[in-house]
Amino acid sequence: MAFEFKLLYESKECDARLGEMHTTHGIVETPIFMPVGTKATVKTMTPEELKEIEAQIILSNTYHLYLRPGQDIIKEAGGLHRFMNWDRPILTDSGGFQVFSLGNLRKITEEGVAFKSYIDGSDHFISPEKAIEIQNDLGSDIIMAFDECTPYPCSYDYAKDSMERTTRWAKRCQEAHKNADLQALFGIIQGSMYKDLRLKSLEDLTLLDLPGYAIGGLSVGEPAELMNEVLEYTVPKMPRYKPRYLMGVGSPDYIFEAVERGVDMADCVMPTRMARNGAFLTSHGRLVIKNATYKNDFSPIDDNCQCYTCKHYSRAYLRHLFKENEILGARLATIHNLFFLINLMKNIRIAIKEENFLAFKNDFYKKYGYLNNN
Amino acid sequence: MAFEFKLLYESKECDARLGEMHTTHGIVETPIFMPVGTKATVKTMTPEELKEIEAQIILSNTYHLYLRPGQDIIKEAGGLHRFMNWDRPILTDSGGFQVFSLGNLRKITEEGVAFKSYIDGSDHFISPEKAIEIQNDLGSDIIMAFDECTPYPCSYDYAKDSMERTTRWAKRCQEAHKNADLQALFGIIQGSMYKDLRLKSLEDLTLLDLPGYAIGGLSVGEPAELMNEVLEYTVPKMPRYKPRYLMGVGSPDYIFEAVERGVDMADCVMPTRMARNGAFLTSHGRLVIKNATYKNDFSPIDDNCQCYTCKHYSRAYLRHLFKENEILGARLATIHNLFFLINLMKNIRIAIKEENFLAFKNDFYKKYGYLNNN
Repeated sequence: MAFEFKLLYESKECDARLGEMHTTHGIVETPIFMPVGTKATVKTMTPEELKEIEAQIILSNTYHLYLRPGQDIIKEAGGLHRFMNWDRPILTDSGGFQVFSLGNLRKITEEGVAFKSYIDGSDHFISPEKAIEIQNDLGSDIIMAFDECTPYPCSYDYAKDSMERTTRWAKRCQEAHKNADLQALFGIIQGSMYKDLRLKSLEDLTLLDLPGYAIGGLSVGEPAELMNEVLEYTVPKMPRYKPRYLMGVGSPDYIFEAVERGVDMADCVMPTRMARNGAFLTSHGRLVIKNATYKNDFSPIDDNCQCYTCKHYSRAYLRHLFKENEILGARLATIHNLFFLINLMKNIRIAIKEENFLAFKNDFYKKYGYLNNN
Repeated sequence: MAFEFKLLYESKECDARLGEMHTTHGIVETPIFMPVGTKATVKTMTPEELKEIEAQIILSNTYHLYLRPGQDIIKEAGGLHRFMNWDRPILTDSGGFQVFSLGNLRKITEEGVAFKSYIDGSDHFISPEKAIEIQNDLGSDIIMAFDECTPYPCSYDYAKDSMERTTRWAKRCQEAHKNADLQALFGIIQGSMYKDLRLKSLEDLTLLDLPGYAIGGLSVGEPAELMNEVLEYTVPKMPRYKPRYLMGVGSPDYIFEAVERGVDMADCVMPTRMARNGAFLTSHGRLVIKNATYKNDFSPIDDNCQCYTCKHYSRAYLRHLFKENEILGARLATIHNLFFLINLMKNIRIAIKEENFLAFKNDFYKKYGYLNNN
C-alpha cells in the first residue's frame, strides 16, 4: 500500500492539526509520539506491551542496526518487523544523527561519511545511497534521508554548507530508493537556528515532493525559546498535506509547544532513558523514586494514571525495586513513562478536535511546570 | 485456611509421588518447581507472566527482605503478596542459608546469629524467634525454620553440633510462630553427608509434627552421586503424608533424580540466573546464545517448546539482544527457562500418574545428558 497522509482537522486556536498516516503496516493517528527502539527493541518492552499502551508506531536506528546485527541478518530474517516481532509501523532514522555525533571518529565528504565503529574500531562508509540501501533492507514503513545534524551553536557558514549538502544528499536518497511503493522517504530540514537557511532548506526539499518532512537539528542543546522560534517560522511553510516530524523531541512540555506550532510527529529516548534511571513522568512533574520520602508510600506513582504500573504497584515497591537494581523496576517505569506520553498525546488529539487545546495545555502546565522540568 | 497436604498417588516404579498442598493462597500440585524471587520479584518477570507460564508458587528470601526494604515496610504494605502483587502461594526461606554464607561476617551462638549487613556494615542479630517474627510479618504461606546450612565438606563433629542446634532452633521456631493457622512452618533436616546425623535430625524434627519438612544442606558443592545417596536414605523415612522439599535444587537432571526418590518440592536460582547470562535450557541441553553459530539462525530456541519466547523470537534475534545487553533478552530467556522447568515438572507429574516416569526420565537423559550438564 502506498503511503498516504490524510489531514483530518486544523485547529482554529493555533497551528495544531489532526491527521492520519496510512502506511504499509497500518494507520497512525497524528499528532503522535513514537517510542524509540534504537536496537530493534524498545528497551525493556515486548511488542505486546507496546500495543497494550497503544503505541502506534516505533522508531529504530539504521546506524545501530547496520553495525549490529547487520543489515544482511535483518534482511534474511524477513525485515525488521519480523526480526523483532512488531507488526505495526516502524520509522527508521537514517543514521545521520548518530554518525555525526561521533566527532573525531568520522570524516565528511560530498560522497558521504567515513567513520570508525564504536564497537571494534573497524572502518565504515555511509553515503546517502548506502543509508537508503540499508533502510530498504530493514523494510521500515518510513525511512529518513541521510542528513547532517549540525550541533548547537553552529556558525552560519558551516550551517549553510551543511544544509546545502543535506539537500543534495536528499536528492541522491530519493534516486537510490528502490521501494517507494512500500516505504515512504522523508526529507530532513536543516539550517541550524538561521531563518533564511531553514526556509531555503525547506523550499529546496519541498521541490522533491517527498511524502513527508522532518525538522532536524533541534533539541540539540539550544534554549527552548529558540526551538519554538525555529518551529514558528518553519512549520507553517512546510507542505500542508504532508506529515511534519520534529526529530528528537519528547518531553511533555516540548510536545505541547511543538504540536501547537503544527508538528505531527515526535520521538525521544527521554521517557525510556529516564525510566531506567527511576524517574517517572507524572501530571505533577518528575518523580524520582529513589527519594527516601517514598520508602513507605503505598500510593501509586500517579493517582490519575491508568497504566499497568499505577494500577498494581506502590511507590514503596517501585522504590524497593530501584534500590535493588531489579529489572522489573526499569520495566514498570518504562511502561508508565511511555503510557504517560502516549496517553498525553491521545488527550491532546481529543483537545484539538474539541478546540480545547490551549486550555488543556495551560491546565497541564499549571501542575507540571513549563519548559523547566526537563 | 489451614495448610493441608494431600497425597494423591504413589508410583509403583519408584518413590515418586503426586500430591497437592492446600495453602492460604491456593493449591499447589506436587512435585513442583518453585521459581525464586529473592527480593520480592522473580528477576525480570511480572506476576502475570509467572501465571502465564503456570508458576503455582514462588520462593522469596527472609534475609534479603529483612535487610531491604525491611519487614516493617512489607507489613505496612499488607504483607508480601500485596507488596509484590502476587496472589498465589509464597514460600519464604528463613535466612539461614544466606546468613551462614556470610562466613567471617557472622557469629553463631546458641541464641542465634550475629552478622553485619552486606549493604552498610550495620550489625544485626537473627534468632529463631526473629526469623519467625519476620516471616509472620511477610505473611508467606509456607515459612521455614531457622537452620544452619553446613558447607561441604564438613567434619562429623561440626555437622553433629550444628544439626542438634538446628533441631533446638526448630523447636523455638515452632513456639514463636504466631500464625500457624495461616502459615505452615516447615522444619529443615540437616546432618551434612552423614547418614546417622541425617536420620537423627529427621527423627527429632518429626516429633515436632510440623506440616512439612525440607532437606537442607544439599546442592552445596557435593558430587551428584552423594546427593542422591543422602536422598535415598533420608526421603523414604520422612513423614509419608507431609510434603518433602529439597532446597536449592533445580537443574532438570537433579529434579528427575530427586522426584524419583520421593521429593515433592524444589527451588533454584539456576534457571533465572542462567537466563540472564544468555544460557537457555533445551531438551538437547544448554544453548549459549552468544555463540556465533546462532548469528543467522532463524529457528526458535527449542522447536518443541510452546513458550512465548519460542513462539515469537529466533535465535538470531535473541543473540542480538544479548550481544547488545538489551533487557528484553534477559526477559525472554527467563520466560523460556522457567517455562522449561515448570513444563518439565508438569510432564513429570503426568508420567508419574501414567506409571511412565522412568521411561520419561531415560528419554529425557538421552537428549539432555545425565548429571553432567550443570
